[in-house]
Amino acid sequence: MAIEQLREQIDQLDIQLVELLAQRQEVTTAVGQYKKEVGKPIYDPVREAELIKERRALAESLNVSPDLIEDLLRRMIRESYQTQHNAYRSVLPSQSKIVIVGGGGALGKRFVDMFERSTYRVEVIEKDDWSQAESIVKDAKLVIVAVPIKLTEQVIKLLPALPDDCVLADLTSLKDAPLKAMLAKHSGPVVGLHPMFGPDVPNFVKQVVVACDGRFPEQYEWLIEQITIWGAVIQKDDAKQHDSSMELIQAMRHFTTFVYGKFLANQDPDLEHLLRLSSPIYRLELAMTGRLFAQDANLYADIIFGAENSKTLADKFKYELDSAIELLEQSDKFGFKQQFEDVAAWFGKKSNEFLTESRAMLKTAQDSRDLK
Amino acid sequence: MAIEQLREQIDQLDIQLVELLAQRQEVTTAVGQYKKEVGKPIYDPVREAELIKERRALAESLNVSPDLIEDLLRRMIRESYQTQHNAYRSVLPSQSKIVIVGGGGALGKRFVDMFERSTYRVEVIEKDDWSQAESIVKDAKLVIVAVPIKLTEQVIKLLPALPDDCVLADLTSLKDAPLKAMLAKHSGPVVGLHPMFGPDVPNFVKQVVVACDGRFPEQYEWLIEQITIWGAVIQKDDAKQHDSSMELIQAMRHFTTFVYGKFLANQDPDLEHLLRLSSPIYRLELAMTGRLFAQDANLYADIIFGAENSKTLADKFKYELDSAIELLEQSDKFGFKQQFEDVAAWFGKKSNEFLTESRAMLKTAQDSRDLK
Repeated sequence: MAIEQLREQIDQLDIQLVELLAQRQEVTTAVGQYKKEVGKPIYDPVREAELIKERRALAESLNVSPDLIEDLLRRMIRESYQTQHNAYRSVLPSQSKIVIVGGGGALGKRFVDMFERSTYRVEVIEKDDWSQAESIVKDAKLVIVAVPIKLTEQVIKLLPALPDDCVLADLTSLKDAPLKAMLAKHSGPVVGLHPMFGPDVPNFVKQVVVACDGRFPEQYEWLIEQITIWGAVIQKDDAKQHDSSMELIQAMRHFTTFVYGKFLANQDPDLEHLLRLSSPIYRLELAMTGRLFAQDANLYADIIFGAENSKTLADKFKYELDSAIELLEQSDKFGFKQQFEDVAAWFGKKSNEFLTESRAMLKTAQDSRDLK
Repeated sequence: MAIEQLREQIDQLDIQLVELLAQRQEVTTAVGQYKKEVGKPIYDPVREAELIKERRALAESLNVSPDLIEDLLRRMIRESYQTQHNAYRSVLPSQSKIVIVGGGGALGKRFVDMFERSTYRVEVIEKDDWSQAESIVKDAKLVIVAVPIKLTEQVIKLLPALPDDCVLADLTSLKDAPLKAMLAKHSGPVVGLHPMFGPDVPNFVKQVVVACDGRFPEQYEWLIEQITIWGAVIQKDDAKQHDSSMELIQAMRHFTTFVYGKFLANQDPDLEHLLRLSSPIYRLELAMTGRLFAQDANLYADIIFGAENSKTLADKFKYELDSAIELLEQSDKFGFKQQFEDVAAWFGKKSNEFLTESRAMLKTAQDSRDLK
C-alpha cells in the first residue's frame, strides 16, 4: 500500500481517537458532578488502580502494550481531574466563613479559590485591612495565615482575638515557630499546614499537604477532610521533625543548587553548546539547576536563611566536598569506589527505584523533544 | 444517571480506545516496513511536527484539550518507534563487514545488534580473540572500539593494521586522546563517536551521538547516515571542545552529586520520611541523587578521574561554596539575592524554558504517583 494511503488511515484513526476523548470527557465530567453531589473526594486511588489493572489486561489480550495504555490512561485521568471539578462539596454548612490573611498572595489566592469553589464565604485580610480585622474574623470558622515566612510570626501576633471554636492555621514552610506563635495567640483549635507545592499546580490532586497538630485535632478535622476532598494527601508530622526534614529537602538542596549555578555561571560555558551535546539525563541535570534561577530570589533566600541549621549543614557539606577533593588529589579511585558503595548501601533499594522512576520520566521528556 | 452506568460507559469507551490503538499499531508497522524498504530514517521530525499540529487543531474543534492530544500522540509515536523497527536499511551493501572491539560489553552489544538489524555482517573482538584479530579485520569496512575508557588508547595501539578504506571509530566518552591514538594507528578514515546515552535506551530515536572528525569525512559519511537511519541525531563537534563540555556536563555534575549523596548518607535522615513529605520536585531532587548510586561505581570513577581538569574544577566549585557559606555566616540575604540575580542573568531566558520543561515533566511524574 502506498505511504499516502497509510497516512490517510492514520488520519482517520486519529479523528476517531479525538472523538472518543471528547465522549470520555463528557462521561467523566458527569462522574465529577456525581462525586461533588455525594461529597466524594476527587481522587480515588483504589478505583484508579483497579481501572488501570483492567485496561492493562485488556490491552494485552489485543496485543497492545500494557505500559502504553497505562501511560495514556494516566494522562487522560489527569485531564479529567482538571475538567471534572469546578466545584467541591463543603464539609461545613454552605456559606461558613473563612478568613485568609494574605489571601492576595499567589498561594493564598489558590486557597481562596478552593474554598470559594466549595461554597464557603471567604474574606481576605491584606496589609491595608488591619483596622477592620476584628470585625472580619468575628464569625470565622477558620483563619489561615498565608503571608511570607519572615512575616508569619509577626502577623500571628497582630491578629485580633478569634472566636473560641475558630480554627487557626498557617501555610508556612517551617512549622515549629509559627505553631508556637499560634498556640500563644489562640486558645482554640490550631493546626500548622505546609502545602508541598507551589501556587502554579493545576489542581490539588495527589499534592502533599503536611499537617502539624497544635491543639484540639477533633475540632479541625473538618479542615483536613475538606483538603482531602480537593484531592490532596495529608501527611501528619511533628513540627520539629518536619522542620529538620525541610532543612535537607528544601534548604540544603536549594543551597547546593545555588552554588552549582554560581559555579556554572562563572565557568561561563556556551550553554547552547552544552545543551546540544546533552542527552536527556544531562539536560535534566542542567534544567534542575537552571529552573531555580527562573524563580523568586526572595523565596529561596527565605527558605535557606530561615532554616535554623543551614550554616551547620553547609559546613558538613563542605567537609564532604573537601574529602572528595582529596580523593581527586591523590587519584584515589579505589577510595572513591568504596565511598560510592557506602552511599549506595545507605540508599539501599531506593536507589534502584529512583533509577527506574527517573528512566520512565526521561522517556516522557524525550517524547516531546524536537530535534533537528 | 447512576455512577455504575457512567462507569460502564467509560469501560466501553476504553475498550474502543484499546481497539483503536491496536489498529493504529498495524498501520504504523506498515509505515515502518515502507520506511525500511525505501531507506527512510525512522524519525521524521517534520512529519511528526505536522501531524501534531493538525491533531491539536482537530482537538480544539471538538473541545478537547490540544495539550492532551499532543501528549497522547507523542506517547503513541514513541511506542510506534519501538514496534515499527526491527530492521533497517543498510547504507553499505548488505553483508558488509563490521568489527566491534569490546562488542560483548553493554554498549558494544547495542551497536552489534543495530548493525545486524541493518543486515551487516558483524564480528566481535573480545580480550581472548586478539590472536585472530588480524584475520578478523582483514575485509572490515568499519572497526569500532567499544571498550571501557581506561583501556581505549591501549586497545587502539594493539589493533592490527586495517584495510586502507576501513573506517576506524570509537565510542568513548572523551574524544581528544582516543582520536589522536586512532589517527596515529590508522592512515584511513577516522571518526570519534560519543553516544550520549546508556545501553538501556529502548531504541536510538532522538538520541544524541556526538561525532568528532579525525580524517576523510567523506569516507565515513555512510556511517553517519547509518546512525541517522536508526533515528539518532548527530552533533558534530571539535574533540577538545567536546571534552571540556563533558567536564561540566558529566564529570563535575556527577562529582557534586556524589558529594551530596555522601552528605545525605552521613546526615542519615529517615529516607522514607523525607519521601513521604516530598512534593514531586523534591522527590525528583532526591531521585536524581539516589539514581547515581544504583549504577556502576567504576563508570563514574572513570568519568570523574578521567576528566583532565576535575581537580581544578572541583577547587573552583569549592571556592563558590566557600563564598556561599560566607553569605550564611553573615546572614547576608541581600548578597545572596544579588548573586542569585547574577546567575539568573547568566542563564537568561533558558532558566524559564527549564522551568516550563521541568513542570511538564513533573506533571507526568505526578500522573503515575500512587498515594495512600
